[in-house]
Amino acid sequence: MRVNGVARRGVWLEGREVMIIDQTALPHRFETRVLRALDDAIDAIRHMWVRGAPLIGATAAFGVALAMRADASDAGLADAERRLPLARPTAVNLAWAVARMASLLRPLPPSRRAAAALAAAVELAEEDVAINSAIGDHGLVLLRGIAARKKPGERLNILTHCNAGWLATVDWGTATAAIYKAHDCGVDVHVYVDETRPRNQGASLTAWELGNHGVPHTLIVDNAGGHLMRLGMVDLCVVGTDRVAANGDVCNKIGTYLKALAARDNEVPFYVAAPSPSIDFALADGGDIPIEFRGEEEVLEVSGLSAEGDVVSARVAPAGTRALNPGFDVTPARLVTGLITERGVVRPERAAMARAFPERNTSA
Amino acid sequence: MRVNGVARRGVWLEGREVMIIDQTALPHRFETRVLRALDDAIDAIRHMWVRGAPLIGATAAFGVALAMRADASDAGLADAERRLPLARPTAVNLAWAVARMASLLRPLPPSRRAAAALAAAVELAEEDVAINSAIGDHGLVLLRGIAARKKPGERLNILTHCNAGWLATVDWGTATAAIYKAHDCGVDVHVYVDETRPRNQGASLTAWELGNHGVPHTLIVDNAGGHLMRLGMVDLCVVGTDRVAANGDVCNKIGTYLKALAARDNEVPFYVAAPSPSIDFALADGGDIPIEFRGEEEVLEVSGLSAEGDVVSARVAPAGTRALNPGFDVTPARLVTGLITERGVVRPERAAMARAFPERNTSA
Repeated sequence: MRVNGVARRGVWLEGREVMIIDQTALPHRFETRVLRALDDAIDAIRHMWVRGAPLIGATAAFGVALAMRADASDAGLADAERRLPLARPTAVNLAWAVARMASLLRPLPPSRRAAAALAAAVELAEEDVAINSAIGDHGLVLLRGIAARKKPGERLNILTHCNAGWLATVDWGTATAAIYKAHDCGVDVHVYVDETRPRNQGASLTAWELGNHGVPHTLIVDNAGGHLMRLGMVDLCVVGTDRVAANGDVCNKIGTYLKALAARDNEVPFYVAAPSPSIDFALADGGDIPIEFRGEEEVLEVSGLSAEGDVVSARVAPAGTRALNPGFDVTPARLVTGLITERGVVRPERAAMARAFPERNTSA
Repeated sequence: MRVNGVARRGVWLEGREVMIIDQTALPHRFETRVLRALDDAIDAIRHMWVRGAPLIGATAAFGVALAMRADASDAGLADAERRLPLARPTAVNLAWAVARMASLLRPLPPSRRAAAALAAAVELAEEDVAINSAIGDHGLVLLRGIAARKKPGERLNILTHCNAGWLATVDWGTATAAIYKAHDCGVDVHVYVDETRPRNQGASLTAWELGNHGVPHTLIVDNAGGHLMRLGMVDLCVVGTDRVAANGDVCNKIGTYLKALAARDNEVPFYVAAPSPSIDFALADGGDIPIEFRGEEEVLEVSGLSAEGDVVSARVAPAGTRALNPGFDVTPARLVTGLITERGVVRPERAAMARAFPERNTSA
């Protein structure tokens, strides 16, 4: 999507260079970084210069390609295969992308691996764009249907949590794909953007990318969404996911579950944009998804722009306060209206999901 | 309760001076202020130097006393009676305290009003302390009961939202009264403190006062409570309230409703500490409670302590982002396990509430 009128992606090639946006500098500074080696890719994922399950997967694929450029031996491949998945534990796309790259590269002679890996990483990135575009097309049908039931002149109000936008993917985003397509088609769409503490991806990334594309939006604190739903101010919720279990349980950014509860209590549809690489058919239910506990400083300190225009860190708690910082939660399938996948809207239920993705069905 | 070993209250007299703590400076600086005139009391409430429904009520009572000191005429009384309730719209204690003071003072000759008003304000403040202490006693029975069902060595985990601590009252707090009493009796109690965006009263006030009293606690973002409840890490929730309607609907800090939904979904008891001055028997249900929309800068900027030890404001959103900032929400009575009042735990239901407070029952 566009930044200051220039089309951008979450990860891209410039010549032989792998480029990313340092998302930790957004929204106050737009900075790109070059990834030159496997360690750079691991750092980019671990330090959240790139984040969002699909973008983590694509960056990991490029990380394997960078590893092959330096050492295409079996040992080099095994090293990349072992170390990349450790960079972040929750998003299934990371392990999925690395496994896919490795199974393609392992049969090849080392001399052919570097070129094949780069081509495969590019292919995986392009697939991500195509998947998200398809999710956007299916979501657009949904949005148009809900918009058609509004009174004339009423805008369509969507609530989203965290950033499942193009910054979380290679392009389009997952939750935002349909929003961008609806906006571009002239649907009068407006987005309530959850701030998404502790890392404020809503305030810093979703608000930034919607603003750059011209989509009307309003920032709210994470506490506010339930009240807005009670007031009838939200027509539907659309969020992304880090991992969907085979039964439709959805792991996503901490706080998603609370919004799903409020949506159910107020009969607001709650959709999860779920590209199939984020679906873990090997995982029976959400109870088995490993949930990352992150550092307490993310809770204790908030970063932002000072009145003087400097990026500053502000400590919100008294000295000595300890914090607990779970990164994700699990929304039970019963609270999810539908999964918007690249093959259409699928009920969050084992049989329906297996029918939609028969090639992924690992159950007996 | 204690600050650096010194017993403190939310509002107090020093000689003839009305004193408060400037809570906007907490947790980084402990500063007191003198209120010298009605306008000071209005400023203190409006600018949230004092906040929390019971403390707003007590400060308003002292505000009437300050007004009488300057002008004890009928016009002076009418002026205070008109202007004080406009300082904040949601907490019913404000209007309640002003009406109580006015009905006591109006029959008196102006020459006696200043002394009577000061005595009445002191009496109202002492009543608040007694009410909260009684709430603490009833809540303590509840906490002991739940603690008794824990395995030996397991601590009792309580989740609270915003600040319904002694800083929100004259002393003890509402939600915290039982926590302080349990801790002082040797119950192994631990509190998960919701940060409570946008103004962070949990991070800045609840964590501060629990820390000063030595109660073990952990700060979490508002998004995290649902996940902790799913993991079985929360034994009960206790929150305060700004206004309870006659049917038991509870108005409290924005985000309370989301925690009540999560508590219900996980069979975690959800209690509201509700002093009777916060119960509005004239209000049929929560739908009629006026909800304050506050300034968007509270969402867009977070204040905290810089690495250099200065209080700084950090802007979290991109330039030009707009925000919406509802201050409170309404938790339907069906999600509330019980109201902890000064007369015991009352079911959030019209008949039970009327039985507990027959003198307040305004229905036919």
